[in-house]
Amino acid sequence: MAKDLTTRKENYSQWYNNLVVKADLAEQSAVRGCMVIKPYGYAIWEFMQDALDKMFKATGHVNAYFPLFIPKSFFGREADHVEGFAKECAVVTHHRLMNDPNGGGVVVDPDAKLEEELIVRPTSETIIWDTYRNWIKSYRDLPILCNQWANVVRWEMRTRLFLRTAEFLWQEGHTAHADREEAVAEARRMLDVYTEFAEKWLAIPVYRGVKSANERFAGALDTYCIEALMQDGKALQAGTSHFLGQNFAKAFDVKFLNKENKLEHVWATSWGVSTRLMGALIMSHSDDDGLVLPPKIAPIQVVIVPIYKNDEERTITCQRGAELKQQLEAAGLRVKLDDRDNQKPGYKFHEWELKGVPVRLVIGPRDVKEGTVEVARRDLMSKEVMAYEGLVAKVTELMQAIQDNIYQKALNFRNDNTFEVDTWDAFKEQIEKGGIVHAFWDGTTETELKIKEETKATLRFIPLDVKEENGTDVYSGKPAKMRVYFAKAY
Amino acid sequence: MAKDLTTRKENYSQWYNNLVVKADLAEQSAVRGCMVIKPYGYAIWEFMQDALDKMFKATGHVNAYFPLFIPKSFFGREADHVEGFAKECAVVTHHRLMNDPNGGGVVVDPDAKLEEELIVRPTSETIIWDTYRNWIKSYRDLPILCNQWANVVRWEMRTRLFLRTAEFLWQEGHTAHADREEAVAEARRMLDVYTEFAEKWLAIPVYRGVKSANERFAGALDTYCIEALMQDGKALQAGTSHFLGQNFAKAFDVKFLNKENKLEHVWATSWGVSTRLMGALIMSHSDDDGLVLPPKIAPIQVVIVPIYKNDEERTITCQRGAELKQQLEAAGLRVKLDDRDNQKPGYKFHEWELKGVPVRLVIGPRDVKEGTVEVARRDLMSKEVMAYEGLVAKVTELMQAIQDNIYQKALNFRNDNTFEVDTWDAFKEQIEKGGIVHAFWDGTTETELKIKEETKATLRFIPLDVKEENGTDVYSGKPAKMRVYFAKAY
Repeated sequence: MAKDLTTRKENYSQWYNNLVVKADLAEQSAVRGCMVIKPYGYAIWEFMQDALDKMFKATGHVNAYFPLFIPKSFFGREADHVEGFAKECAVVTHHRLMNDPNGGGVVVDPDAKLEEELIVRPTSETIIWDTYRNWIKSYRDLPILCNQWANVVRWEMRTRLFLRTAEFLWQEGHTAHADREEAVAEARRMLDVYTEFAEKWLAIPVYRGVKSANERFAGALDTYCIEALMQDGKALQAGTSHFLGQNFAKAFDVKFLNKENKLEHVWATSWGVSTRLMGALIMSHSDDDGLVLPPKIAPIQVVIVPIYKNDEERTITCQRGAELKQQLEAAGLRVKLDDRDNQKPGYKFHEWELKGVPVRLVIGPRDVKEGTVEVARRDLMSKEVMAYEGLVAKVTELMQAIQDNIYQKALNFRNDNTFEVDTWDAFKEQIEKGGIVHAFWDGTTETELKIKEETKATLRFIPLDVKEENGTDVYSGKPAKMRVYFAKAY
Repeated sequence: MAKDLTTRKENYSQWYNNLVVKADLAEQSAVRGCMVIKPYGYAIWEFMQDALDKMFKATGHVNAYFPLFIPKSFFGREADHVEGFAKECAVVTHHRLMNDPNGGGVVVDPDAKLEEELIVRPTSETIIWDTYRNWIKSYRDLPILCNQWANVVRWEMRTRLFLRTAEFLWQEGHTAHADREEAVAEARRMLDVYTEFAEKWLAIPVYRGVKSANERFAGALDTYCIEALMQDGKALQAGTSHFLGQNFAKAFDVKFLNKENKLEHVWATSWGVSTRLMGALIMSHSDDDGLVLPPKIAPIQVVIVPIYKNDEERTITCQRGAELKQQLEAAGLRVKLDDRDNQKPGYKFHEWELKGVPVRLVIGPRDVKEGTVEVARRDLMSKEVMAYEGLVAKVTELMQAIQDNIYQKALNFRNDNTFEVDTWDAFKEQIEKGGIVHAFWDGTTETELKIKEETKATLRFIPLDVKEENGTDVYSGKPAKMRVYFAKAY
């Protein structure tokens, strides 16, 4: 196991915190709750962005950019929204500093108070719908399919790197439609995009569902979600797509002339995923030796480590390593040749294991002579000697094999840790042990909240297109029409 | 000329403001001084980002992300920096809103006052060097070559879309080095990168120079810059690269053990370009008909407009247009087929001219019959009938020809509007008329400020590697050792 890395069994939470820092993904900054995303972590985020951005564009979306600041009064316009978002937020009240006349350094200039405070966006529905009012006159202006990549701020009291930070990076899509059906279809389409991205790129199997009224986005009529199961048995909401109805159009007076020449309010969706996905990625696959990265989003897919005892051996192994690097790169792989002379091979092995590089190639002088290479897989922690001849094709194939294996392993874990329960004792016991619990629910917020109070489990989602069946609510004993999914969650 | 677009001659400033809005690039938002970058404008910015990001990575840089907020006290640590930046800025003082107990809606919660105010970053040297302190122990940790793509806020009093906005988007590189020479070389290398980007991608010829002490970045020892000339004869600083010496390392106590095992302060650079480049792009090339975009960063490179009088003609011209689109896209071009049925061809022509699409292809029924296509160039506003056969190759060649022509035109304008003057009268007269003036300067800030006071012209730059010659300062009449460049500027 990696040096100084707490094991998952010892303390899962500390293992996570340790790993994020030691693998050079992110660290706390001098500003409470705000993180620094380090180059290695940011490179992973860039691969995520790139894949998502292409999927958004392939489904007809365009990017735009809206202001960081939102006038305070905007939040008051949508009643649920202000409750959900405007409370814990960063408030800009002044626009100038000055030298303290009493010599106390730089202080806020009391004369530079803003007439209306500005809120650093926690999400952008309000400012965007205020803008859309001017963009939309007739049905010909619809749909509008905009996305923005941005930073947002929510003043969280307890923060954790990637999972819950005061500032985080995300994308937020905001679309406008001429009718309900099209808006619902859009919200569902983006849930499909998120599902494909989570499963194909991040190798994270996700459940797809819709939130209960209590867990809905503030201002939405329906919140669709993808939910993943972490290795400690807690669920993590990995992405949401909201059908907003006409709420924001009404709040910001956005109307259009329909084909019948009548004024109607516009229909809306919004959808987002954030740097929280980094947390989901880490907690889905990594182990006590460090990160395990799916090849598709690994900044380095192959690391080559030459082994030598003297200058002559160094020359030939590094030369062979450089050749191999070139060939692998020509095949489209991201490769690093670790020819640092101030670190021992063992140190290098551990470092790249910690950083989750999917494949390690080791080349010693004998390998060069005999035309072999030692190939190690990070996902299995296995080693195998292969022929140098034809290695590029083999390693290329390995990328998909590793991607698939990581996904399958996570899928098996998720399936093995989803439990159907029918009694309240079994429910409590299972929630205590961890995992996702599938149980009958009577459909009331009252019961949902009682369950949360007694077990800390939340209703994660109602399955999409749930089929009705008759049963008894696991908590209240009242008649229930469907099974839904509960878990403790991040 | 485009409908409702003020001409440059009539009112250059209004022409610019009109054009930015009418070409769907950006607009004012509800928040004072903050703009909305609309999808068409943002698409151009994305091409800029993509090209720059590749150039940064090709020169060994990596991306990272640092916090939006900076503790107020950080600014006090570097004396020049606080003067330059901390004064006009957005200050976060509270972290919570509450319902007004007197029923006045949502108000700031007085109990949620921050212990120390946070500044929304106007630039990130301080927070980044506070972070680097923990990243750097020995010379082996150097160099650090980080860049970030981010939003920044400077509380400008008079704002203009893209040119000067309270919030803008940019990239800021922040590098750390073991010695002065390497840091200077880095600052110069990035100036080269910016030059290449401006000239090859944006088709904007730039002068390269170094700022006078008075115009330097707050905290820098040297500020290198690229300067462009706009069509109204004013200069625009298009990018800067700063050699920061050890100033920030000293302010944030960042030291490293050198090869001789001695502790030394780290050397620094920072460099950035912003959405201001959008303003430079627009003002360099556009005309009274609208935008003129260099093909390399045009979101749409070719627009195809079918012409028809009835359904039958519509079918055949649109079919031909669709074929052509497919072929052009297969050749790597970005193409739009404008087959809207609710707009006349003339309207479409004007719209795409306004939006600066480099090439328009018009296909009427006779063209389909005779195997021809009308090809119009936006840069020359010229039309030519070409054979359908072999058109893809011709249009592909046109892209480079247009790119080159736009650059050459701007270069000729720039050269024709750079004037060497030797007397104060000639200086004043030329500055009044516009253009860049090349004149002897005695090297003092005093003279520089006097010139600014009397003419509004600023010292734009001292040429790189300026050769000393003996002369007389154009203003003070004192002995001068070099000619430098003055202009009124954005």
